[in-house]
Amino acid sequence: MIAYPASLQRLIRELSKLPSIGEKSATRLAYHIINNDRPTAHSLAKALVESAAAVTFCEQCFFLCEGTRCAICADPARENSILCVVEKPADVIAFERIGEFKGQYHVLHGVWAPLRGQGPESMKLAELLARVKQGGVREVILGTSSTVEGDATALYLARALSDLGVVTTRLAQGIQKGGELEYADELTLSRAFQGRSAIR
Amino acid sequence: MIAYPASLQRLIRELSKLPSIGEKSATRLAYHIINNDRPTAHSLAKALVESAAAVTFCEQCFFLCEGTRCAICADPARENSILCVVEKPADVIAFERIGEFKGQYHVLHGVWAPLRGQGPESMKLAELLARVKQGGVREVILGTSSTVEGDATALYLARALSDLGVVTTRLAQGIQKGGELEYADELTLSRAFQGRSAIR
Repeated sequence: MIAYPASLQRLIRELSKLPSIGEKSATRLAYHIINNDRPTAHSLAKALVESAAAVTFCEQCFFLCEGTRCAICADPARENSILCVVEKPADVIAFERIGEFKGQYHVLHGVWAPLRGQGPESMKLAELLARVKQGGVREVILGTSSTVEGDATALYLARALSDLGVVTTRLAQGIQKGGELEYADELTLSRAFQGRSAIR
Repeated sequence: MIAYPASLQRLIRELSKLPSIGEKSATRLAYHIINNDRPTAHSLAKALVESAAAVTFCEQCFFLCEGTRCAICADPARENSILCVVEKPADVIAFERIGEFKGQYHVLHGVWAPLRGQGPESMKLAELLARVKQGGVREVILGTSSTVEGDATALYLARALSDLGVVTTRLAQGIQKGGELEYADELTLSRAFQGRSAIR
């Protein structure tokens, strides 16, 4: 049986380890690299090795950084009395893009998803509780996703934080800007009703 | 503006050079590698460098190999009087999976697609003509895709080969096995009519 050269097969196998890349996509990517873009093979390999060596997690908030503290935790202008808890580093980037939040973050690197076998130990919960217990935190904003797992995680965190004397808040949920009522799902509509506010 | 660490940004940039991987997918892949799978960073980097160094194109048929001749061209049992011309290496693998074809291949590594600026020089056409002119080839099967570009390429090749005294054939086109007539497109139906055969 004729097959691809051994080194190409290894490349295909390595590429298909990545999430959402199956064997067909991996084959297409490997062929592209070998056929059109060998310089990318080298620059991608270099970036992989360098980032695997350099990227660390901030010792305080677990956002990605190079060193011990991320740029946010190291910034004396950020309020440390208000923490925004998020699921993953990309959420920090999303909040920072708005530029309104001046507090600090705590990245969970996971959610509470017992159906998928992910318990409280699969997220940086102990580290969050220890941080709050150290004192100085006034409010914890639960900025997890508006999904079933994100909501469950927020509820779980709210309970875990309930005895520590901090205010816990949740991001508003409702109709998204530009969203037509006709196409909003029932849960979104129900939450939009519950969270309605007086027109000022 | 808060951003990802520099080495991670470089990894994201390198990953997004790959076809069909946009910035969002690249960010997701990079985060996966850094967060869950640093060993993959190293094994993928190794596979990239090794395959970029080892994989060559067969000097005769331009299939992928490690060395000068691929396993098919090097096999004395394969007939060299019949050539199957295909667009890309994956097509060779697809034909070999059936295991019926005992001739040799010629991989074009491209198609004739003037609307996308890909002329005859974007495929291994001169090499095909030189190979046929050397003599010994009786039939050239045009095994390009059944797409507009694949058909145009087959027509182009048939004309280029017309003076060289070889028979050129095209793969049959028609309703695919298991395909319902109701859902077949018009061109497929029309070709199935034109190519109809007597029931033996």
